[in-house]
Amino acid sequence: MGRPRTPLLDRERITTTALELLDAQGEFSVPQIARRLGVQTGSVYHHVDGRDGIVELLRERVAEAIDIAALDVRPWDAGLAAWARSYRAAFAAHPRAIPLLMTNPVRAPRVLEQYERAVALLLDAGFPTGDVMPVVVALENVVLGSALDLAAPAAMWEIADEAATPRLAEALDAAGENRADRAFDLALEGFLSHARRRLEAQGARPVI
Amino acid sequence: MGRPRTPLLDRERITTTALELLDAQGEFSVPQIARRLGVQTGSVYHHVDGRDGIVELLRERVAEAIDIAALDVRPWDAGLAAWARSYRAAFAAHPRAIPLLMTNPVRAPRVLEQYERAVALLLDAGFPTGDVMPVVVALENVVLGSALDLAAPAAMWEIADEAATPRLAEALDAAGENRADRAFDLALEGFLSHARRRLEAQGARPVI
Repeated sequence: MGRPRTPLLDRERITTTALELLDAQGEFSVPQIARRLGVQTGSVYHHVDGRDGIVELLRERVAEAIDIAALDVRPWDAGLAAWARSYRAAFAAHPRAIPLLMTNPVRAPRVLEQYERAVALLLDAGFPTGDVMPVVVALENVVLGSALDLAAPAAMWEIADEAATPRLAEALDAAGENRADRAFDLALEGFLSHARRRLEAQGARPVI
Repeated sequence: MGRPRTPLLDRERITTTALELLDAQGEFSVPQIARRLGVQTGSVYHHVDGRDGIVELLRERVAEAIDIAALDVRPWDAGLAAWARSYRAAFAAHPRAIPLLMTNPVRAPRVLEQYERAVALLLDAGFPTGDVMPVVVALENVVLGSALDLAAPAAMWEIADEAATPRLAEALDAAGENRADRAFDLALEGFLSHARRRLEAQGARPVI
């Protein structure tokens, strides 16, 4: 008879199931994954390095959608902007994964490789070594805060009594559509122009 | 005998229980709240306007810790910075509440009142009405992205093979302590100086 061509259980299927649970519930557990796949909990642990291992598989899966080639774009600020846009889109597709992935240490090799390239971009542009991680993390704050906002309703403020908050009502009327995109563009533009000026102020000579 | 002085069930206790569940699990359900309080699920619904009503009670509870008086500080950018710092601290105390509160429409009157004051600060500073909500939301992206980062481990990148990511290792060594605070300061400073220049560029005359 031979073995079935598609194994009942592999890392891909475990990751897919964990992501489905996370998207639906904001959480996942190994017993839940096992139940969905119709196997024993212990069998899941044969394939992954514990629950933390599944978190890293989830990180790789979500990060796969990020356009890492953007980090080869020059000048550096164009590359960083393209990476940020693609990073935001990847995480906006899985907003409930954001808190889990942001609060667990990054171990996945393919994701570390992505940070390596972002760091290289900034070092080559002339940022002092000590500034590079704060710059990367500040950009991630903007990206991930905005990715969560993309999952919010278009009408985010529901005013029952306009007399109580007249100026908010006025600002909302004037804001138009695409709140989340306009806010992200503003935050990204602000971040990049600030980084650009820091670089110029210290008289750095970009390598690229 | 008379009635007990402390009612078994009130909105305060429902809110406290919902927040405990959210902090622990990243989610809450009305039956879970009822079980914890030793009452029927239906009794909980007598006190609140459905599950959405509990979300708004949670929003008010978390937002209570924000220093709304910061929005009276002038000049506008000092007020906005103080508000942002206090807003970040309030949400950093409940990181798992962030996705829930960011993806449900704001209805709580006391929270709408806080937006009203933030909007008034920006309008009085001279921002065009149509720019006010994008500015507020962009600032919230920075604040809430950073609040999530505050809940992350201090050592966020775990490099197993330094040869694979040498420049990341170098940047991490040089970054020093307080990654989250340094990144937030950078992002906030970048945001505010960008907003300041936008205001100047359009020749606005601040009211305050």
